[in-house]
Amino acid sequence: MSERRRRVTINDVAALAGVSKGAVSRSFNGASRLPESTVKRIHDAAEQLGWRPNAAARAIQGAPARTIGFVVRRDPALLGSDPFFPLFLAGVERVLSAHAYGITIRFVTSEEEETRCYRDWVAESRVDGVIVSDLRDGDPRFALLDELDLPGVIVGDPGRAVSQPAVYHTTDASIRELVDGWVQRGHTRIAHVTGDPNLRHTLRRRAIWADALATHGLGSDLFETGWFTEDGAKVATRALLAAAEPPTAIFYANDIMAAAGMGVLADAGRTVGGDIAVAGFDGIPLAQYLSPPLATIVCDFDELGDVVGGELMTLLSTDGSVPPVTTLAGRFLPRASYELRAE
Amino acid sequence: MSERRRRVTINDVAALAGVSKGAVSRSFNGASRLPESTVKRIHDAAEQLGWRPNAAARAIQGAPARTIGFVVRRDPALLGSDPFFPLFLAGVERVLSAHAYGITIRFVTSEEEETRCYRDWVAESRVDGVIVSDLRDGDPRFALLDELDLPGVIVGDPGRAVSQPAVYHTTDASIRELVDGWVQRGHTRIAHVTGDPNLRHTLRRRAIWADALATHGLGSDLFETGWFTEDGAKVATRALLAAAEPPTAIFYANDIMAAAGMGVLADAGRTVGGDIAVAGFDGIPLAQYLSPPLATIVCDFDELGDVVGGELMTLLSTDGSVPPVTTLAGRFLPRASYELRAE
Repeated sequence: MSERRRRVTINDVAALAGVSKGAVSRSFNGASRLPESTVKRIHDAAEQLGWRPNAAARAIQGAPARTIGFVVRRDPALLGSDPFFPLFLAGVERVLSAHAYGITIRFVTSEEEETRCYRDWVAESRVDGVIVSDLRDGDPRFALLDELDLPGVIVGDPGRAVSQPAVYHTTDASIRELVDGWVQRGHTRIAHVTGDPNLRHTLRRRAIWADALATHGLGSDLFETGWFTEDGAKVATRALLAAAEPPTAIFYANDIMAAAGMGVLADAGRTVGGDIAVAGFDGIPLAQYLSPPLATIVCDFDELGDVVGGELMTLLSTDGSVPPVTTLAGRFLPRASYELRAE
Repeated sequence: MSERRRRVTINDVAALAGVSKGAVSRSFNGASRLPESTVKRIHDAAEQLGWRPNAAARAIQGAPARTIGFVVRRDPALLGSDPFFPLFLAGVERVLSAHAYGITIRFVTSEEEETRCYRDWVAESRVDGVIVSDLRDGDPRFALLDELDLPGVIVGDPGRAVSQPAVYHTTDASIRELVDGWVQRGHTRIAHVTGDPNLRHTLRRRAIWADALATHGLGSDLFETGWFTEDGAKVATRALLAAAEPPTAIFYANDIMAAAGMGVLADAGRTVGGDIAVAGFDGIPLAQYLSPPLATIVCDFDELGDVVGGELMTLLSTDGSVPPVTTLAGRFLPRASYELRAE
């Protein structure tokens, strides 16, 4: 890592505003009896220099925050049914706790808010490192972390050389196994319902699905965007059923979409595991209780969190190194929804 | 709130160790060139006084941490299938973000670790307030918060007068509606699979189930502990089926247990929604995709988080007051699993 820039201190603010250090401190902690015009001058000086009270407190101490930051830019509605989030967190925190570190989570709704959050954390010395997940195409966060000199571990495949280490599940082989198996069983119309197309892992799953089909000389125009949501999957499934030649097998980019899609298929008089085959992705516990049990690609998010937490602790220690890329293997789990049953 | 005790300052440590303030500061930030024996003397003095570097940094500043703490003492394995956690967090964080507050989550595995976490947070001024959930019988946290003078909002019914405000779903009426409906349909053997008996809400659900049965002159000995887990529910369901007079209806204390139980019932040749009725609790999205769709008691955890976040922000402001108890209503949602179908 590059050397950290010298921090702006309370002395700089005091000098610029022409007041004492004590006056600066009091103007920020509400204990000030200074004229309003003086308070304003101090705050203007602080803003001009990018100085904030907490940064000073930390700088005086030089103590680490002992906290890892995790900015989550995601629709809260998506959190309730996504197995990634709680399991991953539990895995990370198990490691952090052992090192007396905590995790701070911030939910944001826009890229602007996301960027501001990282900048505030650094300005106020609130975190020692961050977790970067839900990678997007053209994601600005790798460069932002470089600029802020903020250590971080990336969850996902950044798709290019970046200075932060990345950890992710490789599921390409599992997706190929899933598609190949369907082709071997005679399927030629194998559809895909994708997640949010702004996310890199959505694009990856679709690309591998398409490539596996191409290997067998099959086209890949049978896909719909499902946004990782139940509602998205329902619309997508209805669109697939309305095609001139509907699919005989559908691969959904997550389990919750597969579950919702199975509901639509049943309503349309189709029999999953009978006259149409279905598979999901994630490996949520409830998948096995669907009817028929849902074939899926299992990812161990708890283990993922464990690895990410370990790499963060290594990054923040003075010794030890972290490989640029660490991968965990996903696993295809065929279940009854994957097969067609002769009636 | 009571007046906060005077904090131990860096001056106290310096005086006790017989060194300057600067020496104390440097001895903690690694910039010290002092003899090892002096560093040891300073650290011994700090430990004796209960002083920590961050407390000093904060005290110099007098700035709030702008952070809410959430200690979660729970088996990580339970997190993946529990809808409460991510939805509740998202609701809390939406409110906190609007006030430029963040949330710090710490997972712990024992009461000792839990207590230490609260004490450390206060000693190091890391949080301004806390969320207390997963209430246990004889929970020591209400008194701990009093002792630490740490503001907090309780998620759940503490069952006695405490100084922290409490927010929770009232689901008594929904449980009675569920049980009454089964009795009206002729069921007399209505079983309950409980959650973790160390949690207050587990005991509450069981007590209301038993009381609703008693209203109809029915006994309440048909219950098994399911621990809120799939495996627990499987064991519990097998035990109920092995009873001399097995139940004709089973109320599970959460949806994931109901799903797992339905699997066991199917394996045993029973038809849910046919010759045995089932209901769950929570209202997870996937419940509607089970076969048959699972009747449940719906709780809006996102709204719960929203209310808790709002009360925390009010508590931490200088004005405004929070009612001792705020309740949200759960809602019974009958679906096909609740009925017996004439075959």
